[in-house]
Amino acid sequence: MHLLDQPHHDGSSLYVSTLAPALGEEVTVWLRVPPGFALEAVHVRTVQDGEPRYSAAEPDPSRRDLGGYGGADTWWKATITAVNPVVPYRFLLLSPGGQRWLTARGMVGHDVTDATDFRLVAHEVPPAWMADAIVYQIFPDRFARSRGHAEPPAWALPAEWDTDEVIGQGPGTPEQFYGGDLDGIVEHLDHIQALGADTVYLTPIFPGRSNHRYDAARFDAVDPLLGGDEALERLSAALHERGMRLLGDITTNHTGDSHEWFTAAVSDVGAPEREMYYFDGDTGEYESWWGVKTLPKLNWGSDLVRDRMAAVMTKWLGPLDGWRVDVANMTGRRGADDHNHEVARLLRPRGAAFIAEHNHDASADLDADGWHGTMNYGGFTRPVWAWLRGESLDLTHFLGVPGGVPTRDGVATVATFREFAAHMSWRSLVHSWQLLDSHDSPRIRTVTGSAERHLVALGLQATLPGTPMVFAGSEFGLTGANGEYSRTPMPWNRPGERDEEIHAAYRELLGLRRAEPALRRGGLRWVHASADCLVFLRETATESLLVCARRAPGDPVSLPLDGTARGVYNADDLDSPVLPGEGPSFKVWRLAVRS
Amino acid sequence: MHLLDQPHHDGSSLYVSTLAPALGEEVTVWLRVPPGFALEAVHVRTVQDGEPRYSAAEPDPSRRDLGGYGGADTWWKATITAVNPVVPYRFLLLSPGGQRWLTARGMVGHDVTDATDFRLVAHEVPPAWMADAIVYQIFPDRFARSRGHAEPPAWALPAEWDTDEVIGQGPGTPEQFYGGDLDGIVEHLDHIQALGADTVYLTPIFPGRSNHRYDAARFDAVDPLLGGDEALERLSAALHERGMRLLGDITTNHTGDSHEWFTAAVSDVGAPEREMYYFDGDTGEYESWWGVKTLPKLNWGSDLVRDRMAAVMTKWLGPLDGWRVDVANMTGRRGADDHNHEVARLLRPRGAAFIAEHNHDASADLDADGWHGTMNYGGFTRPVWAWLRGESLDLTHFLGVPGGVPTRDGVATVATFREFAAHMSWRSLVHSWQLLDSHDSPRIRTVTGSAERHLVALGLQATLPGTPMVFAGSEFGLTGANGEYSRTPMPWNRPGERDEEIHAAYRELLGLRRAEPALRRGGLRWVHASADCLVFLRETATESLLVCARRAPGDPVSLPLDGTARGVYNADDLDSPVLPGEGPSFKVWRLAVRS
Repeated sequence: MHLLDQPHHDGSSLYVSTLAPALGEEVTVWLRVPPGFALEAVHVRTVQDGEPRYSAAEPDPSRRDLGGYGGADTWWKATITAVNPVVPYRFLLLSPGGQRWLTARGMVGHDVTDATDFRLVAHEVPPAWMADAIVYQIFPDRFARSRGHAEPPAWALPAEWDTDEVIGQGPGTPEQFYGGDLDGIVEHLDHIQALGADTVYLTPIFPGRSNHRYDAARFDAVDPLLGGDEALERLSAALHERGMRLLGDITTNHTGDSHEWFTAAVSDVGAPEREMYYFDGDTGEYESWWGVKTLPKLNWGSDLVRDRMAAVMTKWLGPLDGWRVDVANMTGRRGADDHNHEVARLLRPRGAAFIAEHNHDASADLDADGWHGTMNYGGFTRPVWAWLRGESLDLTHFLGVPGGVPTRDGVATVATFREFAAHMSWRSLVHSWQLLDSHDSPRIRTVTGSAERHLVALGLQATLPGTPMVFAGSEFGLTGANGEYSRTPMPWNRPGERDEEIHAAYRELLGLRRAEPALRRGGLRWVHASADCLVFLRETATESLLVCARRAPGDPVSLPLDGTARGVYNADDLDSPVLPGEGPSFKVWRLAVRS
Repeated sequence: MHLLDQPHHDGSSLYVSTLAPALGEEVTVWLRVPPGFALEAVHVRTVQDGEPRYSAAEPDPSRRDLGGYGGADTWWKATITAVNPVVPYRFLLLSPGGQRWLTARGMVGHDVTDATDFRLVAHEVPPAWMADAIVYQIFPDRFARSRGHAEPPAWALPAEWDTDEVIGQGPGTPEQFYGGDLDGIVEHLDHIQALGADTVYLTPIFPGRSNHRYDAARFDAVDPLLGGDEALERLSAALHERGMRLLGDITTNHTGDSHEWFTAAVSDVGAPEREMYYFDGDTGEYESWWGVKTLPKLNWGSDLVRDRMAAVMTKWLGPLDGWRVDVANMTGRRGADDHNHEVARLLRPRGAAFIAEHNHDASADLDADGWHGTMNYGGFTRPVWAWLRGESLDLTHFLGVPGGVPTRDGVATVATFREFAAHMSWRSLVHSWQLLDSHDSPRIRTVTGSAERHLVALGLQATLPGTPMVFAGSEFGLTGANGEYSRTPMPWNRPGERDEEIHAAYRELLGLRRAEPALRRGGLRWVHASADCLVFLRETATESLLVCARRAPGDPVSLPLDGTARGVYNADDLDSPVLPGEGPSFKVWRLAVRS
């Protein structure tokens, strides 16, 4: 399978005159057509106020001189209008072979629904820094403990940082307390920055009765065990001084059962807070997250919930530059109630980041003027795992899916990447977080079973569209067979437990992403997919980077590209694009048209 | 391509224990697995309150005795719950070959979004009669004129019924007036009923200043030119006496510019009706349908619009059994406004039918507790046209798509059928109208260019899931190259212009649909698709009908079915299912397991 012989558009700024149109603004979109692909006419179909409209495209000779690779391509352009906040569009290709459509899922010779149309989005744009961000996730209890750290609380099972094993299941799991704190993070900002990350995302920092703090007792003060509000100010100031950013983690689906709102609600059926949760009028029972009674579910039909949570979201902007939202997918949803999109619109903090946790498919919740993006488990983590999993991996489920992690080939992997990307706008794709693992999953090193495949996974994370999110510790090759075991205390004092080779690769590959606009904001063209090898281009108007990821050795791959390739990462210069067969490997070249 | 070697589920009552679950009700779903397909385990994934859940399926030996064809199949069953009004579900198939998903789009070996999941729908159910209905569309000015018909109005260009040509474009098109009326319809109910139709759908009957009356001047009285309110009562009573039903046509997107609401709004900027339309505060200009100033667009942000239109919808129930809604796709949509789903929920008349016009893709607007179904141009009309179009057909567009009607093969045709069906619930599919043509399109006889292919199209319309809608006159093989030319006065007095062979085929094939529960309510399994031949099964627990549609002669098709087939329509009995190659042809058999 290779796609260089097909017309291409992907919604990136190489193909769209603005990614931030105002409502009603005219926008130019381009179609790139390879030599030899016969076209008689091209129309762009939009859906405006619910009705399809057609704009005739015309060839754009000015694009023949485009600096990136592809000088022999023909470009067509058309003008469309951002009549609605989201305008679906697609290309109608008329050729001697008949009528074909190009949507974000690819070119087809039959009619398809609008579900995978490209999307012109005129909603308020996310903060500009987000498209370039590299996120570093910290689970505060396990990252670093400052000299002045607090004493463990009464509910906790204190653990020794460098000697006690993590309790990964059963009793003690949420109570095991290593005592990491916010000042501990400040002491390691050099490490984070050197890695290439510019944005720190903290799992919850409000007080609870667990090491994970997803059972918040209040939202108006930082846990004193983490150093309190002042420690947050210190961490934020230290980050902002470096030009870095800080994101929090908020539970909009539920609170802890020790939260002051819930204790008021549960102790007095006449309390105003009673309406904030789902109490059964007869039994007094209440709805909770997955039936976990310590996590009572918020009722977003309540104005009090809306007022109070909206105030929480804005209160912390200043120290925080935005939020990751826990269980965003369930927020506001229960039975006949579905307030999710309203809630997302209401809570999105102006000028700040707003990322929704969603572990299977967020596409129906994106592009709705709420969440800027999702944690892209479905469209990135799962396909990468299934392609790169170790042969002897023995997990009982696949991020919640029964049957363990399947083994899938490169063709299925690209099919998944494209399937999920096709159901969201380019804007939502690039603002979504692509993660190899998190505090809720096994570690990527455990999944891949080898440093070599871990590096290939990292390479994809660093070079595909989307915001890389690195879970602290994975840069050292730490392991963990589930989300609990993965919450490893960082081995600052245990150099023997740090894989410094993969650490160096993180610095180099994330550094490459920082250095290369094409990797952050370029378009994406898939070039080749076979069982063991994936090849794609990331392109701006002036650069074309060629990326080759292999999970195993194989035959060299000869590409229909007439040009030279200069090695950029782990790659020799090539006179012609015949990509070497060594593997597992991850390689990047810069293409140049043969002069 | 044949699909009998794959597991199957389609959301029909053969595979789901109830199609009308209450919110919170437990429902059994079944998966049918052909012999030789190895499965280790099956799970059903639902999405509940936004989160995926898995139910383990188990084999159901009780289904081995199923009366319909497929005695060698294995059935798996699982229990799921209608936790939300719409619960997406899909099957996870675990086998030695890995993990696969079965969604409404088919079986895949990679992850896909929820967009094509099957859907369990707990919204209020449509009236029971709808699933069995066959609809007959009448454009009142052109159907029949009673003895006591009214005189033409001042705006009209009177035309002679049997001698004047239809004006199909340019000046006079909307004014040409043949003078058909409602009592004229009463005189022809025998014809309609004999055809097999049980539901008459009338394009607008409110007064306007055109022959099509989509420019309604009021919604509270039937046009006196059609006989007024009393004539509607007479028509309705005559239909109801026969056990038949009557549907109206309402413009929720706009009114006519002579409508009393609009004249009040335009004559007085202080009138309460001013807010009912989109007036520009500065220029006084107003929004209209496609810029046609005689059709000012309603503003559904206005409570007055909501109150008045809701009253209109219910006022006519009694004589009417429901509504077809004109330009439903644009209703309530303009710029940043999108009230469409709210409007559909508000206006849906309780206990009555509510069908949305939508000429490209209604899937995103269905299953939202509003429209019961759509006029399925996208998922039925277009693929049938592209498969069966005549070779010399010369239309400049394809129901609005530039480039004319493409020629597509059977594989592309089934791909389109499945693509659109996969994006809506089974309930929405079977309540959608499948039409070969309408007052807005060329006639199917013109599209196919031959009686033979017309019959194949009719066969698909009569046997696929969905509600057949016949545009009056097509049963006589009338022609018309666009929607205006197609508004032919019925040739009651011109027997030479009636194709009585195709008329007989309508009676026989629609009669077959009426007689066979499997054609109305059975499941659908695609069996074979090649360039010129489509084969599928319609099945209940006790019957399996095998349908073969050919657009051209070809090789006989041998099916992997171990049974006999008894001819039901235009077909000889077969000892083994080797389907003859004659064509164009349309044939139906009843399958029986070899005893």
